[in-house]
Amino acid sequence: MFKIIKRSKKSNARVGLLKTAHGDIQTPVFMPVGTLATVKGMTVDNLNEIGAQIILANTYHLSLRPTTERLEQYGGIHSFMNWKKPILTDSGGYQVFSLSKTRKIFSDRVEFKSHLDGSLKVFTPQNVIDHQRRIGSDIWMPLDICTPYPASKDDVRKDMAVTNKWIKDAHGYWDQLDTKSLFFSIIQGGMYPDLRKECVSEFKDMGFSGFALGGVSVGEPREEMEEIVASVTPELPEDKPRYLMGVGLPENMDFCIQQGIDMFDCVAPARLARHGHVFTKNGKINLKNKQFQDDLTPIDDCDCMTCQSYSKAYLRHLLVCKEMLGPILLSYHNIHFLVKMVDKIRNDILAED
Amino acid sequence: MFKIIKRSKKSNARVGLLKTAHGDIQTPVFMPVGTLATVKGMTVDNLNEIGAQIILANTYHLSLRPTTERLEQYGGIHSFMNWKKPILTDSGGYQVFSLSKTRKIFSDRVEFKSHLDGSLKVFTPQNVIDHQRRIGSDIWMPLDICTPYPASKDDVRKDMAVTNKWIKDAHGYWDQLDTKSLFFSIIQGGMYPDLRKECVSEFKDMGFSGFALGGVSVGEPREEMEEIVASVTPELPEDKPRYLMGVGLPENMDFCIQQGIDMFDCVAPARLARHGHVFTKNGKINLKNKQFQDDLTPIDDCDCMTCQSYSKAYLRHLLVCKEMLGPILLSYHNIHFLVKMVDKIRNDILAED
Repeated sequence: MFKIIKRSKKSNARVGLLKTAHGDIQTPVFMPVGTLATVKGMTVDNLNEIGAQIILANTYHLSLRPTTERLEQYGGIHSFMNWKKPILTDSGGYQVFSLSKTRKIFSDRVEFKSHLDGSLKVFTPQNVIDHQRRIGSDIWMPLDICTPYPASKDDVRKDMAVTNKWIKDAHGYWDQLDTKSLFFSIIQGGMYPDLRKECVSEFKDMGFSGFALGGVSVGEPREEMEEIVASVTPELPEDKPRYLMGVGLPENMDFCIQQGIDMFDCVAPARLARHGHVFTKNGKINLKNKQFQDDLTPIDDCDCMTCQSYSKAYLRHLLVCKEMLGPILLSYHNIHFLVKMVDKIRNDILAED
Repeated sequence: MFKIIKRSKKSNARVGLLKTAHGDIQTPVFMPVGTLATVKGMTVDNLNEIGAQIILANTYHLSLRPTTERLEQYGGIHSFMNWKKPILTDSGGYQVFSLSKTRKIFSDRVEFKSHLDGSLKVFTPQNVIDHQRRIGSDIWMPLDICTPYPASKDDVRKDMAVTNKWIKDAHGYWDQLDTKSLFFSIIQGGMYPDLRKECVSEFKDMGFSGFALGGVSVGEPREEMEEIVASVTPELPEDKPRYLMGVGLPENMDFCIQQGIDMFDCVAPARLARHGHVFTKNGKINLKNKQFQDDLTPIDDCDCMTCQSYSKAYLRHLLVCKEMLGPILLSYHNIHFLVKMVDKIRNDILAED
């Protein structure tokens, strides 16, 4: 299911191949986010041109619209959105805690109100698996509590205890299903390495398909995130893929891949694009800035459709005029940038002597 | 410059070839609207896939943003927006009267306030030509007064007198320029056939590159527009292209082409798309309607990217979730629909015995 193709001699980086029901993924990999069964502004043709290998979708959002019952009736998310490659779904736990104004945690479930109409919903460790089964995604995540940052060790420990029980319950439930879908564990423990290690030791031999690091990208300084990644990755089984949830800015890639992270996702490329920000080899720039008004060069030395076809002056004009082609072309570039950046790191490892 | 390839035996329809500095256009033709140097939500690759032969841009809007001085400095609109085929610009007259809250008409100019910042602007018959020269479009239109509907014959006659003087002034100015760009006359005269005929007789021998029918698609019933088209087209020179300004819904095409109209434009495909409306062979449907919630078939029996890849249920989901991919895919279908509809009518004429 997961095979390490090559290990770097310079770091703990590795190149792997992750097999799913909708094809193989070469790791390390950047996964564009398609929350509601659409990567904002991108057609599936666009995503294929860019070379995206796998995309994310979100269980919380899809459970509300179009509902997972409908997705099952439609034959699953792949045919619904016409994306033929792998899809990973997160459990929706993060959204329960970030979007729902009221929620109540019980030992076996969380009750919350829909951010759309306030109606009462319940997520259990088991029904979140059922949601993902009906969605038809290839990689599933367990329901967890995403502790805010900063949080005391006691608070993190308390949430972790609940999360860990849920994950074990979810694992038992997944284990008895007849499914080809992979199931990852989530490692919580906040910014406390000993709690993280405790988590890993509980789960490492249970037969999960992979390990996700959760509770990062929640507002902590980059250094703290990196410390946690550096302290946890050596504890994880070598032969399973590691997914760093919600992390995937250009400045994160080198370090995290060197620690042995295999999978990244990040909503930033699209969100930044909507505000005029684009990645370049020399850092992020804001195309709304006056300095780009008459700049007839492309965003970057880059082979994406946007850079091959349009200048900064034109893109800025679209942004100033609030034309929808602006966010479309900027998202295209930003997603391309991250996908190709990780591709290059992977190819560099493969090219090592 | 304009050559009639074939005349239908069944009607006054004709197939023509219009030569411009950026290539030939086969007529009849539907021209997608790209007001601000962008057809909303469409990349130039999309427009080329669809088979658009020529697009429109707008002098009023471009004169404000990015300004025509900038467009000239950038090498013209074609390289700015990376569209290599012909572009027609309207004069901006319509927007002066529809967007600007205050404007004052003089015998030789119109003064108006920008809808963006209220700053005072002046359009003259000559400077509107200069704007279009700096834009670098292939087909230019003269400044005119777009009389509202309904209007008394006296009011129409008064506006027409000013417009006609402006158009003659503009023609004289264009005539002495060293340019490959074509220049059309605009025929006004409201819903009064005798005024329209008066207009035509003033302009028919002056050496315009083509004739546009203005003052239509301003709120009049379809029947009145059709009557005016039917009464004016026989008066127009046979050997010049005829452009029916702002008209281009599916229900307009057959009749108007049979009267001998060669060129259409319409902002509706994109505007309708933003509200969930799409064209089908059986009429317009609103994809937001509940009846399409579980409809896994495409919009229509259609070979466009949207219909080849996505179902009505998926498109409706995008619209309900206000995802930007919704208007993108619907615009794509609607523009494709109109371009192909006119292509088919043209090919049917060519295929006549």
